[in-house]
Amino acid sequence: MITIPNVNQINIKKDMRVKDIILAMENSGVMGAGRLSKAAIISKEMISDKNCKVFMGLAGAMVPGGMKNIIIDMLENKYVDVFVVTGANLTHDLIEALGFHHGRGTHLVDDKKLHKQGVDRIYDSYMPNKAYESLEDFFEKHLPEIYGKELNIKEFLWWLGSKIPAATFKHGSNRSILRSCYEKQIPIFCPALQDSGIGLMIYNHIAKNKKIKIDAFSDMKEIMGIAWSCKKAGVIYIGGGVPKNYIQQAMQLSPKSASYGVQITMDRPEPGGSSGAELREGISWGKMNEKGKFVDLICDATIALPLILAYLKDEIKQ
Amino acid sequence: MITIPNVNQINIKKDMRVKDIILAMENSGVMGAGRLSKAAIISKEMISDKNCKVFMGLAGAMVPGGMKNIIIDMLENKYVDVFVVTGANLTHDLIEALGFHHGRGTHLVDDKKLHKQGVDRIYDSYMPNKAYESLEDFFEKHLPEIYGKELNIKEFLWWLGSKIPAATFKHGSNRSILRSCYEKQIPIFCPALQDSGIGLMIYNHIAKNKKIKIDAFSDMKEIMGIAWSCKKAGVIYIGGGVPKNYIQQAMQLSPKSASYGVQITMDRPEPGGSSGAELREGISWGKMNEKGKFVDLICDATIALPLILAYLKDEIKQ
Amino acid sequence: MITIPNVNQINIKKDMRVKDIILAMENSGVMGAGRLSKAAIISKEMISDKNCKVFMGLAGAMVPGGMKNIIIDMLENKYVDVFVVTGANLTHDLIEALGFHHGRGTHLVDDKKLHKQGVDRIYDSYMPNKAYESLEDFFEKHLPEIYGKELNIKEFLWWLGSKIPAATFKHGSNRSILRSCYEKQIPIFCPALQDSGIGLMIYNHIAKNKKIKIDAFSDMKEIMGIAWSCKKAGVIYIGGGVPKNYIQQAMQLSPKSASYGVQITMDRPEPGGSSGAELREGISWGKMNEKGKFVDLICDATIALPLILAYLKDEIKQ
Amino acid sequence: MITIPNVNQINIKKDMRVKDIILAMENSGVMGAGRLSKAAIISKEMISDKNCKVFMGLAGAMVPGGMKNIIIDMLENKYVDVFVVTGANLTHDLIEALGFHHGRGTHLVDDKKLHKQGVDRIYDSYMPNKAYESLEDFFEKHLPEIYGKELNIKEFLWWLGSKIPAATFKHGSNRSILRSCYEKQIPIFCPALQDSGIGLMIYNHIAKNKKIKIDAFSDMKEIMGIAWSCKKAGVIYIGGGVPKNYIQQAMQLSPKSASYGVQITMDRPEPGGSSGAELREGISWGKMNEKGKFVDLICDATIALPLILAYLKDEIKQ
Repeated sequence: MITIPNVNQINIKKDMRVKDIILAMENSGVMGAGRLSKAAIISKEMISDKNCKVFMGLAGAMVPGGMKNIIIDMLENKYVDVFVVTGANLTHDLIEALGFHHGRGTHLVDDKKLHKQGVDRIYDSYMPNKAYESLEDFFEKHLPEIYGKELNIKEFLWWLGSKIPAATFKHGSNRSILRSCYEKQIPIFCPALQDSGIGLMIYNHIAKNKKIKIDAFSDMKEIMGIAWSCKKAGVIYIGGGVPKNYIQQAMQLSPKSASYGVQITMDRPEPGGSSGAELREGISWGKMNEKGKFVDLICDATIALPLILAYLKDEIKQ
Repeated sequence: MITIPNVNQINIKKDMRVKDIILAMENSGVMGAGRLSKAAIISKEMISDKNCKVFMGLAGAMVPGGMKNIIIDMLENKYVDVFVVTGANLTHDLIEALGFHHGRGTHLVDDKKLHKQGVDRIYDSYMPNKAYESLEDFFEKHLPEIYGKELNIKEFLWWLGSKIPAATFKHGSNRSILRSCYEKQIPIFCPALQDSGIGLMIYNHIAKNKKIKIDAFSDMKEIMGIAWSCKKAGVIYIGGGVPKNYIQQAMQLSPKSASYGVQITMDRPEPGGSSGAELREGISWGKMNEKGKFVDLICDATIALPLILAYLKDEIKQ
Repeated sequence: MITIPNVNQINIKKDMRVKDIILAMENSGVMGAGRLSKAAIISKEMISDKNCKVFMGLAGAMVPGGMKNIIIDMLENKYVDVFVVTGANLTHDLIEALGFHHGRGTHLVDDKKLHKQGVDRIYDSYMPNKAYESLEDFFEKHLPEIYGKELNIKEFLWWLGSKIPAATFKHGSNRSILRSCYEKQIPIFCPALQDSGIGLMIYNHIAKNKKIKIDAFSDMKEIMGIAWSCKKAGVIYIGGGVPKNYIQQAMQLSPKSASYGVQITMDRPEPGGSSGAELREGISWGKMNEKGKFVDLICDATIALPLILAYLKDEIKQ
Repeated sequence: MITIPNVNQINIKKDMRVKDIILAMENSGVMGAGRLSKAAIISKEMISDKNCKVFMGLAGAMVPGGMKNIIIDMLENKYVDVFVVTGANLTHDLIEALGFHHGRGTHLVDDKKLHKQGVDRIYDSYMPNKAYESLEDFFEKHLPEIYGKELNIKEFLWWLGSKIPAATFKHGSNRSILRSCYEKQIPIFCPALQDSGIGLMIYNHIAKNKKIKIDAFSDMKEIMGIAWSCKKAGVIYIGGGVPKNYIQQAMQLSPKSASYGVQITMDRPEPGGSSGAELREGISWGKMNEKGKFVDLICDATIALPLILAYLKDEIKQ
């Protein structure tokens, strides 16, 4: 006879902290609330486990969506050991580092008018198209430095981070993911960097026959090496895409596969794509440890991430 | 030239209250986070507006999902003036009032085994099937009292609430939505009551040719009357379904239609059904005021509701 | 050792019939294609099974979405024995029977302008608001006939169908679901009829203190009776909502529960609501037979239904 | 005064061809059916437009999902001029080319058991893990041929296609996307090739310090050149991800941006990610021509693609 714990109806009081809500959700334990509390608690466990290397994959419009400083905090607080990210997020990060802001817009807009106004839309977040001119100037200034050199993508991204003026590293608006990865020497991977504004900038120089050699595969040795040599691994996936899949692939080489897993996405599993695939599917592949602790949180990451980080800041001692 | 406010990157600190997070999300202002903050703030405005009658529609497995006390708080705090609900939520409420609990289960289960064990599954929430026996006893005891009488659904539900033993009305586990609606005389509507465990209990008596007359239409006069006579209306929809649509219909008769609107659902708008329809669609019908404040929050309600109520308890003076 | 059949890569040729595509999808057998073929084949089996009563639940904007004649064909071809439907679909059906059409619009529209033009929007389908005036005239003319009488909802709907001018019953535009149910005496149930334009019309008369008595519960005896007495039951759910749940409830009383099941919805299961719940969940409740054949097809019903009916017309001998 | 065309209720007859259904859906014109017909018709127009270069982006588990031969037909029929694809689809293609099949499984399975049996799961499609051994042998045999050479990803993929034994190029089971791209010299791009089984095979050799130099950026010149020099461009996106975004990026350089667009995905737009973003968003960026013909079809691609190709084969003269 198995004892099934009760769904404890959540009670809300005045002045509740985020942490209190997460705990109340743990006590109710089902549906979205149950999953959110599990996501927070499993994140805490994997980050607190000294034997565990945490791999975070970040896709989706997280910088235009207001999550930049949250990511930077997670990186700088050493919550994350290996960071895999889309080129788009790095481009938006770089654009903010160059002094631009994203704007709060609406999806109910005439995109033709935005186009005339030089505004690029990312759902309800706006970006001034002239940011590309600053990007071009930035790369025009710095890229010649690596003409003729051979780099891999990780080396390129650290180099790129080194070119960003040092931020205050307080809660200023010009903090930068790229800069933080460089300063803290956090391994950062971006397997489809071509597919981004940064990729476009590099293309501009290649198109003029400048010699830029960035190898697609050589930094696999590093991420695979970390996966291979770590005692335990944990994964945090925000938004699926290449970052998730690339880490999953590395987990196949990790001795125990992933022992912890948190996935936050709005994609569904049924169409069969990797982004929406439930984490337990990874057990069949040897990507997830069959005794691991996993949760698939189906939630807009811009809602879930601030809550989870607030919980982590309260619960993890530095 | 329109000035577009910046997406302010969210900063997370220690000991953050839920209210602080909502405000941080207001400052970022886009995607899910932007919508969650709007949902909280618009809820506050409509509840605080003394000229506004608040209509709440509740669908989905909210009682099995741990949201019962949150709903009761919203009702008892007078945040809600008119309550439309599915019969299923009332059935689950009644079952808890009779001393049963829902259980924290998993969707990754063999439903055949659950069936053998007498466990009914609602996604990952479980309910003991024997609760139906207690329901039967309860109705066996009380229903004869209304044999031969003519009631409408609202009258029936208040009567039903009166039969539930008074709860402590502190944060006890035996609080009851039905009881609260009766005690506080909150107008409660349930247009498809037949479609529920409670409906099934009534059917049991009808099948034995007992005279139970519950009119389907006569309580429309009351909800329509409130909509017709209020100065302003606000709507809160959790999960779509009949409760949403029934309130929307009443809004067509309200002089200013709905001036405030908050919708929380995971359904998508594109297939065309009412549950997933964006609130702005209601403007075309005269259900929503074209100058109203609305937000469609795409989020599991078990995540969003606790956060919104925590914000409301901090922000609304009683 | 279990033999797993191959995913046969689908081959497309010229002049393929819908039936050919369904069979090709059966041979590939996975993801959406596999589910679509299963939905068609299971539908065929339940309809062809002479011992099986087929219960169809219809929700969502199916008449505005162009599915009216498909539903009528299914009803008139005796594919369906018991029909449970939302009041909205019946209202849209009645509006078309009175000579109006829905219009092909867009969701990217200013709803304020539509409102001024007297156009009601259902996602990208439009309806002239003046249709309500014709509805009012229609009910003004006919409703006095039932003043003072006692009806249940099914009786009322058959009576309503009898008032609709006989359609040509060829592929004319003025075919009517309501008329067909009346003419063919198909049991039709609509537990939340209040929640619809038809409900609003009845309310108009109640508001003037006209005596209209429509009992909410008494037709439960009929649907429950059919469920109770049938040798086998099959269910087809389009769009969830009350129609699905009401049939599910009846299945609990059916001796073998449902032996066949097809569900077509875009709703997800994880938030816990009935509409998106996987059919297998019903096994735990005794709503689905544990040896039954079921499929959850995740697809816009306006895509899936025409394909399935085309398959059925080719495969079922009348 | 704008005339709004009617939603013509779809009529289903016996022996309907796929083409007939698509036309019936064009006449109903709304919701999913309306979008499916538009997707088919816009695809036909862009493919038939001799001034138009068609860029197809393919993500999601399309080979495990039974879509391989459909993709190959589209490539070999010259429906597609530029092909961008995920490494996962190419890996599954190569695995089938080496004689393996995917299997029809279920998502309701114990992944631990699958793992023990050496079965990798992709939702409800299975793959024998031993396929990796054959992959290893294949690369062991062939890869030394390119040791020390410098290739870009497109060159590598054509080279890889050249190593696959020629298929019969009838409707045999061993047709191959990679082989077809090589034989027909179709430009094929895969910006995140590292993130795939093929990437893993290359890593195996790099890990042993073999010199494999595959440049990440140099083939951008080719895709950008085609985008830059074409008179018109059309885009077909199946499943979002990097393939969509990479083509979108190229469209920014195309003189007229994309004049035609078809997107098939189950992802939602609201969370802000590129995969679910509506095509019209691209107008703001200059990726889509503001007078272009676009449709976002929200449908499982394994359902939509066979229907669209059947329509194209009937409607496009070769």
